Amino acid sequence: MSWLDEVPWNEHDLVAVVAQEFSSGRVLTVAWMNREALEKTVATREAVYWSRSRKKLWRKGEESGHVQRVREVRLDCDADAVLLSVEQEGGIACHTGRESCFFRRLDDGKWVTTDPVLKDPAAMYGKKK
Amino acid sequence: MSWLDEVPWNEHDLVAVVAQEFSSGRVLTVAWMNREALEKTVATREAVYWSRSRKKLWRKGEESGHVQRVREVRLDCDADAVLLSVEQEGGIACHTGRESCFFRRLDDGKWVTTDPVLKDPAAMYGKKK
Repeated sequence: MSWLDEVPWNEHDLVAVVAQEFSSGRVLTVAWMNREALEKTVATREAVYWSRSRKKLWRKGEESGHVQRVREVRLDCDADAVLLSVEQEGGIACHTGRESCFFRRLDDGKWVTTDPVLKDPAAMYGKKK
Repeated sequence: MSWLDEVPWNEHDLVAVVAQEFSSGRVLTVAWMNREALEKTVATREAVYWSRSRKKLWRKGEESGHVQRVREVRLDCDADAVLLSVEQEGGIACHTGRESCFFRRLDDGKWVTTDPVLKDPAAMYGKKK
């Protein structure tokens, strides 16, 4: 049996994936993978996700250059999730140009943006090859 | 508009939740919350999840005593996820008696258990009041 068969794929054949920066421990993103995405991630050691909106594989950083180099892949006990320890190229995981997608914190009943934009998204995505 | 309305509830009215230990940065669990669970979590400062298998609210640690005290709640940009920074009572988040649910690592095409069992699950769950 393949290690891929042990992943608890959900009813859409996807698994939730948490990407955590290796050096700082910061949780960067939560995204989704299908079987092919996880297989490619492990084979290339760079994170490949499944875009649920675009319904296609998406190599993280393919446009922005902000790839995630994968150091470790972990599986949880039963909650349908994979954990990646990654080195985030450019220190920017979020499409908004921030380090982490979790840039809002709940403070007194409001979501407050706590993280600065490190790079203008227009500069990240504006110039496609 | 309530802060709860800004959470991107999925088609099952749930959101994926990552719990991360405040002191070590270790990712402990991925679970799910509905609106009521998130509201109770914030109100009580202890993690309350939605059990998809039992279809009911589940206060983390209600049987084992291993509650998660919530220090911070974060929301991501668009991927339907919440991040909790928690202090894990007992240092055990997993129902298998381990620190983290992510106790298996992919090594050469096999999931290898890397974490010890810190407490026998029978002792955690065996004696119900």
